[in-house]
Amino acid sequence: MTATAPTSTSTANVARELVDLCQQGRNAEAIARFYSPNIVSVESMGSEEMPAEMHGLDAIRAKNDWWVENNEIHSAKATGPFIGDGQFAVKFDYDTTFKPTGQRMQMTEMALYTVEDGKIVHEHFFYHMPQA
Amino acid sequence: MTATAPTSTSTANVARELVDLCQQGRNAEAIARFYSPNIVSVESMGSEEMPAEMHGLDAIRAKNDWWVENNEIHSAKATGPFIGDGQFAVKFDYDTTFKPTGQRMQMTEMALYTVEDGKIVHEHFFYHMPQA
Repeated sequence: MTATAPTSTSTANVARELVDLCQQGRNAEAIARFYSPNIVSVESMGSEEMPAEMHGLDAIRAKNDWWVENNEIHSAKATGPFIGDGQFAVKFDYDTTFKPTGQRMQMTEMALYTVEDGKIVHEHFFYHMPQA
Repeated sequence: MTATAPTSTSTANVARELVDLCQQGRNAEAIARFYSPNIVSVESMGSEEMPAEMHGLDAIRAKNDWWVENNEIHSAKATGPFIGDGQFAVKFDYDTTFKPTGQRMQMTEMALYTVEDGKIVHEHFFYHMPQA
């Protein structure tokens, strides 16, 4: 046994376990297990309260908590992973109602994750927007 | 030699060759080699002239030709592929000027491709939007 697994295996393992956890709705556990303390998270669009780029585990946990508290989740599906060299992608399909407005929406997004030393150091979300 | 390669190998091969061709700017050749006659292409947003969902090789070729004719491409980068089970993803970074308006823009997108019998039958684009 070597102390360090090859990067590609490590990326694939992190990818599969993250998809498994998200598929079970255990996103907070995925963050705890796989996210680097120095995680950088990039959303497509930002606002004053919720900037597009966030740094560090505390900010990412707060974002995840905010989302869970403010959305009723009718269904959530994780498809993948799609594995590359030190990076992997996951497709997410959500059917949610945003509690403050009561608006129900279906959203599909791709997340692209970057792995270093077995930890996710960067996540980047790409959206499929509803027809304008 | 068997007549048919396993689906996963076929998907990986199509994925790698498509990224190679796109990386060289040979997108039209990628369409000719790997796209099914029954290709379905889903953009995030549509308009009357350019609907969000298009069917068939002729429509996809016309869309590609329109894009190439109307954009000056300063740089185009394909990252990946990210390989899954019968599907793969590619990240594209474009720096372009839209000729009709002269507007220069940087755009990043993820494309998710579905492969059947060695041909791409579905493509779906997800965007990173510039800060609103």
